[in-house]
Amino acid sequence: MNKILLVFALLAAFAGIAAAQDPASGPDPVAPKDAIAPRAGVTIYGRLDMGLVVDSGPAGRSVRLTGGVAKGNDLGFKGSEDLGGGYRAGFVAETGYCADSTTSSGSGTTSPPYCTGSNFMGRGTHVDLYGPFGGINVGRQYPVGHSYLMLVDPFGGGTAGQVLNLADVSGPYVSNAIRYMAPTLGGFNFAVELGLGEPSHGSWADGRENGASLIYGSGPASVGLTLYEVRNSNGFESARRNVLLGGWYDFGVVKVHAMAQRSTGHPTGVALPIDVLDLMAGLTVPAGAGKVMATYTHHDDRTSFADHGDQDAHQWALGYLYWLTRRVSIYAAWARITNQNGGKLTVGNPSEHGTGNESFNLGMAYDF
Amino acid sequence: MNKILLVFALLAAFAGIAAAQDPASGPDPVAPKDAIAPRAGVTIYGRLDMGLVVDSGPAGRSVRLTGGVAKGNDLGFKGSEDLGGGYRAGFVAETGYCADSTTSSGSGTTSPPYCTGSNFMGRGTHVDLYGPFGGINVGRQYPVGHSYLMLVDPFGGGTAGQVLNLADVSGPYVSNAIRYMAPTLGGFNFAVELGLGEPSHGSWADGRENGASLIYGSGPASVGLTLYEVRNSNGFESARRNVLLGGWYDFGVVKVHAMAQRSTGHPTGVALPIDVLDLMAGLTVPAGAGKVMATYTHHDDRTSFADHGDQDAHQWALGYLYWLTRRVSIYAAWARITNQNGGKLTVGNPSEHGTGNESFNLGMAYDF
Amino acid sequence: MNKILLVFALLAAFAGIAAAQDPASGPDPVAPKDAIAPRAGVTIYGRLDMGLVVDSGPAGRSVRLTGGVAKGNDLGFKGSEDLGGGYRAGFVAETGYCADSTTSSGSGTTSPPYCTGSNFMGRGTHVDLYGPFGGINVGRQYPVGHSYLMLVDPFGGGTAGQVLNLADVSGPYVSNAIRYMAPTLGGFNFAVELGLGEPSHGSWADGRENGASLIYGSGPASVGLTLYEVRNSNGFESARRNVLLGGWYDFGVVKVHAMAQRSTGHPTGVALPIDVLDLMAGLTVPAGAGKVMATYTHHDDRTSFADHGDQDAHQWALGYLYWLTRRVSIYAAWARITNQNGGKLTVGNPSEHGTGNESFNLGMAYDF
Repeated sequence: MNKILLVFALLAAFAGIAAAQDPASGPDPVAPKDAIAPRAGVTIYGRLDMGLVVDSGPAGRSVRLTGGVAKGNDLGFKGSEDLGGGYRAGFVAETGYCADSTTSSGSGTTSPPYCTGSNFMGRGTHVDLYGPFGGINVGRQYPVGHSYLMLVDPFGGGTAGQVLNLADVSGPYVSNAIRYMAPTLGGFNFAVELGLGEPSHGSWADGRENGASLIYGSGPASVGLTLYEVRNSNGFESARRNVLLGGWYDFGVVKVHAMAQRSTGHPTGVALPIDVLDLMAGLTVPAGAGKVMATYTHHDDRTSFADHGDQDAHQWALGYLYWLTRRVSIYAAWARITNQNGGKLTVGNPSEHGTGNESFNLGMAYDF
Repeated sequence: MNKILLVFALLAAFAGIAAAQDPASGPDPVAPKDAIAPRAGVTIYGRLDMGLVVDSGPAGRSVRLTGGVAKGNDLGFKGSEDLGGGYRAGFVAETGYCADSTTSSGSGTTSPPYCTGSNFMGRGTHVDLYGPFGGINVGRQYPVGHSYLMLVDPFGGGTAGQVLNLADVSGPYVSNAIRYMAPTLGGFNFAVELGLGEPSHGSWADGRENGASLIYGSGPASVGLTLYEVRNSNGFESARRNVLLGGWYDFGVVKVHAMAQRSTGHPTGVALPIDVLDLMAGLTVPAGAGKVMATYTHHDDRTSFADHGDQDAHQWALGYLYWLTRRVSIYAAWARITNQNGGKLTVGNPSEHGTGNESFNLGMAYDF
Repeated sequence: MNKILLVFALLAAFAGIAAAQDPASGPDPVAPKDAIAPRAGVTIYGRLDMGLVVDSGPAGRSVRLTGGVAKGNDLGFKGSEDLGGGYRAGFVAETGYCADSTTSSGSGTTSPPYCTGSNFMGRGTHVDLYGPFGGINVGRQYPVGHSYLMLVDPFGGGTAGQVLNLADVSGPYVSNAIRYMAPTLGGFNFAVELGLGEPSHGSWADGRENGASLIYGSGPASVGLTLYEVRNSNGFESARRNVLLGGWYDFGVVKVHAMAQRSTGHPTGVALPIDVLDLMAGLTVPAGAGKVMATYTHHDDRTSFADHGDQDAHQWALGYLYWLTRRVSIYAAWARITNQNGGKLTVGNPSEHGTGNESFNLGMAYDF
């Protein structure tokens, strides 16, 4: 009870500060909100992307039309409200959806019900507070490491060329999460996040996810170090840890990208521990109102077991993106993975795992 | 066939009346609607609410981030159209969604797929007709008794402090429902509703829900009597009946609330008949641009069985709500239930049942 | 690899053409889209329709409130972008939803989770390109034959009176589809579509759907020939083929409709081959700001098996639609099917199969 009274006191103090900052905007006490504020001010945005996908592999060829090939299809609602004194509140509610088909026949192409996200509003959905202190987001959101990986990858984490084909992240969203982003200081951005599990009781560390990123940016250069970690359900050890070091330098005629990610741990449901080092080098070359992208990624499997040696792999990827207008783009991409020692890594895209070790995409997207 | 011809005749007559009321707005006969009316005029609204929930109870502590703690998260679409002659048509389509996580690990925290509602557009979704006769809503909607309970409860049916922790309503929405609201007469509002089941054949009373409310309001005072009733699938008897008498008086410096609800019947799937009387007394005290809320609720279990005595309980609740702006609010709430004779009532919130008999909430909400 | 290089070259050429057509609108190369284009320009539209449904049949009577009786309830998002040079890009993302109830108790009334569509955005959802060459839609969409059938049917494929009660189409949407529509030439419209399945490997013809339509329109007259075909999962033969010939002539005081559809094949999951000829004749009569609709449909079952003779049937249907305003309409409809030799065809509506061989509807709809 003492702690609770303390929190109430802190909250009252916070309310006092906020009221002092913005006395003019305070509503009548206890007035029902609807009586004084007509609802308005929500922005709708999203993307509809459809592409032809041609997968090739040992099992044969698969020709499909797929939604969200270059970037997952989404529909979002967002808004922002000035709180005065340099403070601002906001919200984002974003759902994935399937534009191609609502079912999947092949296990290799299985999509979750919302294609990119396992539920309605299953993509980034959070309430936000920004101010001189930085920013806080509360809800479901990208791991900060995943966000930076998508910037480092010349393909932006999309199409067959995505580095994610090799450098897996075990789920791009962190639920029940709170993220703090510090203000930019001397070119440095620091963010930390904590994803609480959904514990009914017992250790509240069960299934907890942690993340952090430290990113330096200056003009054409960026370099970042990020961490992602998920706890086993017993709460005692890291089930998976991703440490990423990456960045880019934009020379104008060409932008050079590089990334190293080490993934270790023993994820729940996986038979054996993992220990993988992914190394990516890539280029982006402006070409008219578009760009050419290319990457080479080496997947160094550092485990070795009785029944097979280490399953190293590497991927070559080549792509082209062209903006017809600011909203409408067309793209083509190709990637091939060479697996070793019976490895089964496939070339997929943000909406599908893919069915073979080689894939070609050709598509069009409308960002609204 | 005779009945059908009669209905057609009545409909034609109604159409004639409507045409007479608004001759100018009638479209060309048989013209396709799209050709003459560009689509427009839909309002989007909703809420994104995230809170920290700390549950305590015999099984231990649970610390979680939860969406929709003070009020369920929703996204809605609505519109209104003048029919002339004092008549107006409208629609509301509202869905719940999960902002925290898309799955639930603990049975105590289980949420339906849309967190507040078991399907897309699973909250209030109805087409409306208003006029001098009053109003008719057809579709899925709140029981009128539940709507009034949320007004009588100082917590508005939200946060840990909700009176619904004790005074359960077995589902806040009535599907397949038609509601009639009479015009206000001398301060009195009367409404009645009928929720048809989904019968494939046989008695169309299967699963039927009935509701009614009579509410008197004048300046600072309100008092209401409401009824909710659901029929067993055999159609012969009431499976559950809630009778609520409640109201408030606003003295300015403090608003006083009181409520009594009797729940009786033998709901499908429940082993034993229920007979419960819930008595709530509460206060709302304006405090700056916010308010303090407090309630005491006594749960009088009027049944007694061989294996246990009556499972009475009571709940203390305290909360604070502060509006940072007309759209953005912060809140804190605490509630504790004392169970007797092995009762297992938990402190939850609109989106979760809760995992313990005590809970603390701290959160922020954005109404858009 | 050679093919892939060829496609890249073609894409680059296409990009060059597009850039030449609209040099002013090209963004800076490689600029992130968000930095230069504030998101805007999405139109929201939809429909909320609720009706009383009274089904009668051998099993008894069912009285229900149903959403989407005259036309399935939907909510859509769409937009359009000028590409210059006579080209235009667009998108449509449309979902069904249930306005009545989220579950179904009777098998006869079973609705998919989204009532008209089995998933979120399960109705027409595609990205589009229009130009002097015609139009291309890629994504999930109506079969072209189904679209024309809804125009030929005086009931527009809605209410109890829908010809679809007899002339089934086994799923009104084609997933993973690409459709090409030729420019109108001398009154002729031609369209062809191909719905790829979701093959993981092997024959990419598995589950493929094909469609085509040739429609002639001139003033008050229209006549069309359409084809729909779905392949068995073994890819060797047509699982179902619908060939439709239909049209109308509008005399002003009355519009006359006629349609013949032959359905043949052996759909997956159906015990015996089907061979059905549906013949429909109908009238639309303007009446004030509304219209009266009537049809007679004969369902000629051309199969005959050991355990039963051919299950012919016929349907009489009568309806009335009245526009209160451009957005708000009321409707009534009645239909009865006479089954022969133990046939079990039921009178349904766009959202339900129905529970009896006779049904009456009375409802109101709001198009927004």
